[in-house]
Amino acid sequence: MSGKVFRVNMSNLSVSIEKFPAKWEGLGGRGLTSTIVAQEVPPTCHPLGEHNKLVFAPGLLTGTPAANSGRMSAGAKSPLTGAIKESNVGGTAGQMYARLGIRAVIIEGQPAGDGFYSLHISKEGVSIAEETELVGQGNFAVIETLMERMGKRIGVISIGTAGEMKMAAANISVRDAEGKIRSHGRGGLGAVMGAKKIKYITLDTTDASEVKIADPDQFRTASRAFAKSLLGHPVSGEGLPNFGTNVLVNVINEAGGLPTRNFRSGQCEGHDKFSGETMREIILERGGKPRHGCHPGCIIQCSQVYPDKDGKYLTSGFEYETIWGFGAHSGVEDLDLIALADNLMDDIGIDSIETAVAVGVAMDGGALSFGDGAAALRLIREIGEGTPLGRIVGNGAASVGKAYGVTRVPVVKGQAIPAYDPRAIKGIGITYCTTPMGADHTAGYAVASNIMGVGGLVDPLSKEGQVELSRSLQMMTAAIDSTGLCLFVAMALADDPEAMPALVTMLNARYGEALTAEDVVSLGKNILLTEREFNLAAGFTNKDDRLPEFFSEPIPPHNAVWDFSGDEIDQFWNF
Amino acid sequence: MSGKVFRVNMSNLSVSIEKFPAKWEGLGGRGLTSTIVAQEVPPTCHPLGEHNKLVFAPGLLTGTPAANSGRMSAGAKSPLTGAIKESNVGGTAGQMYARLGIRAVIIEGQPAGDGFYSLHISKEGVSIAEETELVGQGNFAVIETLMERMGKRIGVISIGTAGEMKMAAANISVRDAEGKIRSHGRGGLGAVMGAKKIKYITLDTTDASEVKIADPDQFRTASRAFAKSLLGHPVSGEGLPNFGTNVLVNVINEAGGLPTRNFRSGQCEGHDKFSGETMREIILERGGKPRHGCHPGCIIQCSQVYPDKDGKYLTSGFEYETIWGFGAHSGVEDLDLIALADNLMDDIGIDSIETAVAVGVAMDGGALSFGDGAAALRLIREIGEGTPLGRIVGNGAASVGKAYGVTRVPVVKGQAIPAYDPRAIKGIGITYCTTPMGADHTAGYAVASNIMGVGGLVDPLSKEGQVELSRSLQMMTAAIDSTGLCLFVAMALADDPEAMPALVTMLNARYGEALTAEDVVSLGKNILLTEREFNLAAGFTNKDDRLPEFFSEPIPPHNAVWDFSGDEIDQFWNF
Repeated sequence: MSGKVFRVNMSNLSVSIEKFPAKWEGLGGRGLTSTIVAQEVPPTCHPLGEHNKLVFAPGLLTGTPAANSGRMSAGAKSPLTGAIKESNVGGTAGQMYARLGIRAVIIEGQPAGDGFYSLHISKEGVSIAEETELVGQGNFAVIETLMERMGKRIGVISIGTAGEMKMAAANISVRDAEGKIRSHGRGGLGAVMGAKKIKYITLDTTDASEVKIADPDQFRTASRAFAKSLLGHPVSGEGLPNFGTNVLVNVINEAGGLPTRNFRSGQCEGHDKFSGETMREIILERGGKPRHGCHPGCIIQCSQVYPDKDGKYLTSGFEYETIWGFGAHSGVEDLDLIALADNLMDDIGIDSIETAVAVGVAMDGGALSFGDGAAALRLIREIGEGTPLGRIVGNGAASVGKAYGVTRVPVVKGQAIPAYDPRAIKGIGITYCTTPMGADHTAGYAVASNIMGVGGLVDPLSKEGQVELSRSLQMMTAAIDSTGLCLFVAMALADDPEAMPALVTMLNARYGEALTAEDVVSLGKNILLTEREFNLAAGFTNKDDRLPEFFSEPIPPHNAVWDFSGDEIDQFWNF
Repeated sequence: MSGKVFRVNMSNLSVSIEKFPAKWEGLGGRGLTSTIVAQEVPPTCHPLGEHNKLVFAPGLLTGTPAANSGRMSAGAKSPLTGAIKESNVGGTAGQMYARLGIRAVIIEGQPAGDGFYSLHISKEGVSIAEETELVGQGNFAVIETLMERMGKRIGVISIGTAGEMKMAAANISVRDAEGKIRSHGRGGLGAVMGAKKIKYITLDTTDASEVKIADPDQFRTASRAFAKSLLGHPVSGEGLPNFGTNVLVNVINEAGGLPTRNFRSGQCEGHDKFSGETMREIILERGGKPRHGCHPGCIIQCSQVYPDKDGKYLTSGFEYETIWGFGAHSGVEDLDLIALADNLMDDIGIDSIETAVAVGVAMDGGALSFGDGAAALRLIREIGEGTPLGRIVGNGAASVGKAYGVTRVPVVKGQAIPAYDPRAIKGIGITYCTTPMGADHTAGYAVASNIMGVGGLVDPLSKEGQVELSRSLQMMTAAIDSTGLCLFVAMALADDPEAMPALVTMLNARYGEALTAEDVVSLGKNILLTEREFNLAAGFTNKDDRLPEFFSEPIPPHNAVWDFSGDEIDQFWNF
């Protein structure tokens, strides 16, 4: 496999280029970031110290014409969880990396002093420059200024003020095709970038060639079949394009798994006010875009552009989990207000899931009242300003729980549990517990099988089959996260027998390999084991693979409880 | 062994009395609290939830006429560390428990609602009452009001507002003979009491008999020999009585182990301004007491009463570690200001070591400036008020590090490292790493051998012999903490061959047993293993037995580094 690796040493502000080494052959995206972190980062190091590394890697198919292949992974030891972390993103940067022939950028060390820097990546290589003007600015201003400075086609990877202040929920923003923002959302990778003192990275693909494909004809045929499979699936071909991920508000509420008022009920009375259906109506009424791709080449288009009452851009990539976090979890049932919060969080550069959950926990702790949207907005602004309260919330839900003495804190490994109650949708609970990432629905989206019957229905309220379900999903997900494909291709892979052969053929046609479907599953399995090994070496044990104790309380309407024993959960790793 | 155990169930506000069970025979103080916590508290439970238990237990000799035997242990799962915790205290409560024939009080469960309660313990048993008037009050006001309500001889165990707010550095205050305060300082046990919704416990010994002694004559002879041994030792007979523990400022500075400006140097230029010698002069000048016992029957009298410029009480129990934390660590070199801070921390009910270290870390993170005493005082007041910044600091040094993105955070298992640099005094570094308590100098005070040559000098700058030293000290300490004797008896035990036989004889004479010196060491060893087992079951690993990575930096003047490998540290548990 061809390609190169850039190493940026921020301790001495030097850059080196390496040929992509044989030991990493076959790896891209998450497989590559996790392998590099596992091989090169001391597991017990301080996540914000000089020994951590921040790795960016486009997926194996990123930059090709394959549908939905525009994603890029970032990896490091997480300041939020202390565990290994991969977080992937759309936008334009991944495809630009791929076109520049870059397999990975590894950012190491830490400069002395308080000054910030920028990196510029182009055909000429990587250069490092001091940056002062944009320090303290939000992500939107950073992107706009850089587009003015360097042209409309520039790629941008940046942090907001949350990342500058090294808050554990800070994310990394990536410019999308419209100059708006997609995020490496979870796990606080923005704080790692802030600790490396890098405000932003720009990418310029001038004179870069197209991504090379070993067998273009074979690739073209396979990618057509793959696209057909995506569009033919009811979830990726209908539900997501029409309503975005927010289609789930009504679906999950109906299933009794919509965590309401900090996980006290599985149904929310006001769900209609912020559902995907309501959102679509508002968007159409105001002349927004109900469909929108997070990266060029996306055919699912679960994103959207949500305008304000005057038809002006308010936010995009307005996800179910964020909307849930304010709507049901915190009782702020006003979509416009949530959209404004989403915009603010994009600008500040803070994970919207972690922040929304943290806001609800702060409400439970009495720092503000449930349902008080204005107070929630003020609180988000305080994150950007770095007030003491802003820092408490900007460090995530566990930080809020500690500060306010709250015992009802929905986190696993210090990362907030998102929008699906694990008592009523037990498969996702197994994923929350066991994924090396900390509570993360995307790591093994058992909701698809538990609620939507993707790949065959597994009863959400029964323990039966959930460990096996989560395990196979987590393996598949780790593989998909390595390809640069959007996770939503998993639906087609589960239900359409044509999809996996098409994916394997695309990989083989791209690199001139002869992989099988088993190889792809093996890839995922090995990534999980690599990540798990890092965590064990960092001091994690099976005691960290557990839900908080309050999940033993029954949740209405099913009065379901979390009833897995530790031994049952630990079977996950028995493979 | 006779005696009784009270169980107070705060979930249903009931009390039960049990005969002291055979399974706990031979246990008191730390041995008893740690055993009960290990047997009854689920190791992975939330420390502030209903499953944690708060246990009080006087030591085996507490309440007897033995010199320095007035101490009481409190134990729980710590909200600061997540590990098992024992913290012991002087004052009058321990001796009152003993006179009431109470071996342990176990507080379980958690009431519904936000209201607070009080417990009253007397010959009639334990009663529970609602309390509203004193909620929100500081410890001094609580003690004064209770003395007005219930008489001058009442025993008081209380929490300040930090405990009410469940801050992880909240301590538990115990009334001393003068109506002032001694503290179960470390590990946040005040937050556990706050989570149980108990504002205070009062003790009344009316009609209680003296503590029964099986062989009074034998006891008297042995206790005389023991007292002679304490007074004959240069540390417990001279240094401590004359200068208090603050005698150490000059001693540790001279040794190059006085951590200065958040552990950047081992010597502090301004050390004279806050040394024990200077303090003694000030106290004498102002008509304070340079010698003072923390409990009736103390003959070492390392405490003192420090008055302000007008001769009015400012603080007592003014310890080296607190003075170091403001003086050298934070650059606030004004003894009067530190004394005022000490008084405030007593009133708010917050651990002065954790808080002082947290203040220095906040200075390093830019929340205030090094040396700014006025800002430090404001910050302490904010803890009591529960402002967001106050909550950040009131949750300890690790919390401050997280909030301000500081990597230089001197903690082990989340608890602040006190006043002895582990690079220049390596034995204490092994104790910080390995004690189940989180960084705690009192758990195995290797400083005595490393610096003062107690029990034979072990070179502080060499790794040689430190693991063995810390191990034998930790075993001995766990045993001493079970007797109710002040830890400073360890000096005499190490250097005077008469001391240990006298101690063993006192134990045997008290209970009619036939223990040997080996039995006492075995007791300590078993306590350590019990505590370690709890922590392992809670998810701790050897990765938690490590110092933060910044201790690899050389510290002036010796330019010593922390050079123990993980394997070398892990040898501690190889016994």
